[in-house]
Amino acid sequence: MITPDALKPAAPDTEAEAAGLPGPVHLMAQLVRSFGQLSLLTNVWTGVLFMLAVFVGNWQTGVFGLLGAVVSTATAYALGVDRGTIDLGTQGFSGCLTGIALYIFLGPQPSTYLLTIGGAVVCVLAVSALTTLLAPWRLPVLTSPFCVVVGVVLVAASAFTRIWPGGSPAALPIAATPGIEYTWTDLWHGFFANVSQVGLSAHWYVGAIMLVGLFIGGIRYGLAAVVGSAVAVLLSWALGAPPGAVATGVYGYNGVLVAIALGTLFLARAVTTALYTVVGVAVATVLTAALNAYFAPFGGRTLSWPFIVTTWLFLAAATTFPRIRRTT
Amino acid sequence: MITPDALKPAAPDTEAEAAGLPGPVHLMAQLVRSFGQLSLLTNVWTGVLFMLAVFVGNWQTGVFGLLGAVVSTATAYALGVDRGTIDLGTQGFSGCLTGIALYIFLGPQPSTYLLTIGGAVVCVLAVSALTTLLAPWRLPVLTSPFCVVVGVVLVAASAFTRIWPGGSPAALPIAATPGIEYTWTDLWHGFFANVSQVGLSAHWYVGAIMLVGLFIGGIRYGLAAVVGSAVAVLLSWALGAPPGAVATGVYGYNGVLVAIALGTLFLARAVTTALYTVVGVAVATVLTAALNAYFAPFGGRTLSWPFIVTTWLFLAAATTFPRIRRTT
Amino acid sequence: MITPDALKPAAPDTEAEAAGLPGPVHLMAQLVRSFGQLSLLTNVWTGVLFMLAVFVGNWQTGVFGLLGAVVSTATAYALGVDRGTIDLGTQGFSGCLTGIALYIFLGPQPSTYLLTIGGAVVCVLAVSALTTLLAPWRLPVLTSPFCVVVGVVLVAASAFTRIWPGGSPAALPIAATPGIEYTWTDLWHGFFANVSQVGLSAHWYVGAIMLVGLFIGGIRYGLAAVVGSAVAVLLSWALGAPPGAVATGVYGYNGVLVAIALGTLFLARAVTTALYTVVGVAVATVLTAALNAYFAPFGGRTLSWPFIVTTWLFLAAATTFPRIRRTT
Repeated sequence: MITPDALKPAAPDTEAEAAGLPGPVHLMAQLVRSFGQLSLLTNVWTGVLFMLAVFVGNWQTGVFGLLGAVVSTATAYALGVDRGTIDLGTQGFSGCLTGIALYIFLGPQPSTYLLTIGGAVVCVLAVSALTTLLAPWRLPVLTSPFCVVVGVVLVAASAFTRIWPGGSPAALPIAATPGIEYTWTDLWHGFFANVSQVGLSAHWYVGAIMLVGLFIGGIRYGLAAVVGSAVAVLLSWALGAPPGAVATGVYGYNGVLVAIALGTLFLARAVTTALYTVVGVAVATVLTAALNAYFAPFGGRTLSWPFIVTTWLFLAAATTFPRIRRTT
Repeated sequence: MITPDALKPAAPDTEAEAAGLPGPVHLMAQLVRSFGQLSLLTNVWTGVLFMLAVFVGNWQTGVFGLLGAVVSTATAYALGVDRGTIDLGTQGFSGCLTGIALYIFLGPQPSTYLLTIGGAVVCVLAVSALTTLLAPWRLPVLTSPFCVVVGVVLVAASAFTRIWPGGSPAALPIAATPGIEYTWTDLWHGFFANVSQVGLSAHWYVGAIMLVGLFIGGIRYGLAAVVGSAVAVLLSWALGAPPGAVATGVYGYNGVLVAIALGTLFLARAVTTALYTVVGVAVATVLTAALNAYFAPFGGRTLSWPFIVTTWLFLAAATTFPRIRRTT
Repeated sequence: MITPDALKPAAPDTEAEAAGLPGPVHLMAQLVRSFGQLSLLTNVWTGVLFMLAVFVGNWQTGVFGLLGAVVSTATAYALGVDRGTIDLGTQGFSGCLTGIALYIFLGPQPSTYLLTIGGAVVCVLAVSALTTLLAPWRLPVLTSPFCVVVGVVLVAASAFTRIWPGGSPAALPIAATPGIEYTWTDLWHGFFANVSQVGLSAHWYVGAIMLVGLFIGGIRYGLAAVVGSAVAVLLSWALGAPPGAVATGVYGYNGVLVAIALGTLFLARAVTTALYTVVGVAVATVLTAALNAYFAPFGGRTLSWPFIVTTWLFLAAATTFPRIRRTT
């Protein structure tokens, strides 16, 4: 058996290790990092900006995100999970995204609160399960625990009248209508919405705040997001994706995440890595369209699966290319 | 290469090892156990009760189950499979369930007999293939060989006029209709039907006989089934699942199997295991609704996939929680 | 981490190793082999016949196949991939099939040229990624890189007006209509079309040329294809598949590939292997019908997934049967 112990993350950075911090401050750092992890970063100030952005977009979304982060963090403590991952926010983060997504897709009903709590508990199990399943290839779980848990709840929702009484969203995929012109607004809104959709918001100004957060985390994170978003917008436009979808970030948030993951986190810095990352962004953009069609007939949601699948494939491929090296 | 030899089950218990038994009695024990394995137990008397229950539900179902068990057992001998697994009924069991399911879904046509024989042969290959594929994580195959073989045959059926001339069952998933009241009968029928659906029957009295078989196998198996079934019924009711589906066990047989697998077989006995198992039952119940929707558009069947997926995820997760331990 | 280096193919045969060959001849051999690899063979003369067959079917298909093969081969050089796999045509081959398939499904538009180039680049990454992912079980990638890349592009196509302005092909699966009689022509056309569909052509004479190519590669390859195609045609007829689909090879090309893979390449020669292979052909035929239904609602394509899945399962199963041995 390949032991997942070998996959424990490196010790958290000094901020998080500051066990001397008073409890409430320590907890606050864990929760704030749960928001920053939406784009895989552990910087506290990135987390603060991301949390701010989520609340600016819609304060109720922020409340659900916090609720999820608190429950996941508490569950991780109760299950005796390695403290390092809790401090880095990788435990709270799946619950945070789960709360945000369930509020957005199901609305603020009483059942949504209970599902957020239950979902956040199950997220901690999903992080462990997926870490173990990916261990033979030493691949990171990324946002897959969130996608599994929220994906299952949303597909199941219309079978339960107390979760979603509004009928099934399932439908055969619809083709793009030719002849619709792009406006300049579509493109620049899309550029920022690609970032905000990482937190499931379609507001361009939410994306702008998050982009500031990324630059605060490190100039290369901000640059990766800028390049990833620009490549995704331009490719979607060139291929003729529906302008309305591009303007709300539907075709680009996966590219932004791929750019951060491949361009700054998991591969060694080199010119070849930059080229490889751009190819990854293009693949994620096309894969987004494919997965939108895949999920449509059974009422599933694409979420960040295109990012996850692309990153896993490109990391797996990298092991055999002498000119591309993994850092972990 | 991770050798699947390491996954050979422990030596069968003394009953089965009694090589001194006359051949027909020995074979009879293997076949009876094939029925008991519907709920993963190897106790001969559990098998007798389960076989009785299947024949009580519908004698033709029993005949198809026996046919499948005989063919799978014979195939396993012919392929030189390890004798221990044959004696424990884990080879015959997939063929048994295959025969039962093909009779129920396709009816007693001539082609169903041939498909049962062919399916039972392929089940033995599927047991081996899936054991090998799961070896890196040391996960048990559970009912996955049956689900793969029967799932493929049923989805393929409507393309072949001699298998299923009645048109494709494929349809977009339908949402639950709000406003239908539960009756007391729905709930207690559902409680027993959750057990009987393990053998693909919706009759409450078949479930009652099987529950007796579980208690004969060991009081903890019976208790696990009772708790699993009760949690599944109550959760389905609380979430607003369709009463008719709950009454026929649609939402609960996976919970029963999860309760037996996690609660009694694969995890060390502890209070934490009991709590963990209840969470697993809840997850399996929601996952059942999600997979029903997933399989609808292409005419697939949920079978016991929710049980399999939930158990795999919870066993994979358990390896990283110090308070939950796997027994194998 | 299981290193995929252990999966490097054996040194290419002497022809390919002839580094003394002038560059253009060497390159020509690599490209010709990319066509021969459509049926997994490395023989140069098989490749010549296959290339001829593709051009005879439709010269534009041949041009797209060549374009894909050239781009994949060049990408493999640029990424520093092991030279052995390039010389054997296993790098160029996925690009070759990608070009053929994109031309057939999307037509000779400008975007199809660009997608062929992009797809052929990504194919090289997909070969590496899938090799790494399959490493724990030492399973060969077969045609899976092609199926992944082309499958994603075709499902995504209708979301982009510049790729496919013609609406989505997604539809619920349709059942076979009872009462349609087979003609003798359906059967013998189907026999050859099962071979030609390996290169995505439905012309019986294309299949005849390719069959000659297989016999030139070795009498056992030709015999395997004959047996695989015959078993697939007879089983489809016996089960009542639609005659028109059987006549165009829809139900049999996967059986031909399975027969070559299991019967001649990956298992030790023995009588038991021959029987095992025939079961594999039957499984692939039924699985083809199942996957046709699976892909229909989201507009996916079956491609050679039935061959891939069947071969992986039968190779994985073989490791536990003492009477069936893997050669690698």
